[in-house]
Amino acid sequence: MDQRVSLVTLAVADVAAARAFYERLGWVAHAWSNPQIAFFQTGCMVVALYGAAALAADTGMEAPRPGGITLAINVPTRDGVAAGLEEVVAAGATLLKPATDMPWGGTTGYFADPDGHPWEISWLPEPALAVDGSLILP
Amino acid sequence: MDQRVSLVTLAVADVAAARAFYERLGWVAHAWSNPQIAFFQTGCMVVALYGAAALAADTGMEAPRPGGITLAINVPTRDGVAAGLEEVVAAGATLLKPATDMPWGGTTGYFADPDGHPWEISWLPEPALAVDGSLILP
Repeated sequence: MDQRVSLVTLAVADVAAARAFYERLGWVAHAWSNPQIAFFQTGCMVVALYGAAALAADTGMEAPRPGGITLAINVPTRDGVAAGLEEVVAAGATLLKPATDMPWGGTTGYFADPDGHPWEISWLPEPALAVDGSLILP
Repeated sequence: MDQRVSLVTLAVADVAAARAFYERLGWVAHAWSNPQIAFFQTGCMVVALYGAAALAADTGMEAPRPGGITLAINVPTRDGVAAGLEEVVAAGATLLKPATDMPWGGTTGYFADPDGHPWEISWLPEPALAVDGSLILP
């Protein structure tokens, strides 16, 4: 299996409501989106929002609870962590952890989207974030 | 918040065991990896394997159950779905759903990694998979 991820799908209670949250962050849904699923191109891969019941039917897994997978977005400045958390909370997210300086030198904070999926906003002291937004480890 | 994902972190019971599973698939861990966390460069972003207790402490979320987020890897041929599922099961994954032709024209199947995180192996009839493995929607 190639070392990559093509698509990350988030189970959501209501596709339209979930899509609206990400659109409030400035994300633009792809033309393939429809009432059953929303697609967002995110660099080399794609994020999808898909009904929880439909996803459970596809995987055969019952009653997941969020938190076993976190998504992170890295920002280019330390101050960007707190600013990003403020922005997402204003758009309807729940703050899980404010911007915190970590022992390894970075700064991170966490929020949950309206379906409870945890996201981290992270700043790394190493210059790992490329101009196009890719995170490339040195 | 920019429209991208920098890092996907999977909560695992045992970082060494989880890392060994992905290494059996041919993935190569980055030099930043250590006994507490393993990093894999995946195109424009990074996959991390991190202890479930440590991740719960970071997010403040308790007792997640897998299934609320699925990861997908797209393959360039329809036959690649069944072949990929066979490969991951041989490496210790659990088959959730065999390769299935879908009403929308593609073929997909699902497996769970040893920590229960669901992955989809997917083939799309549209030529969305770039030569470098990126999934770029047309």
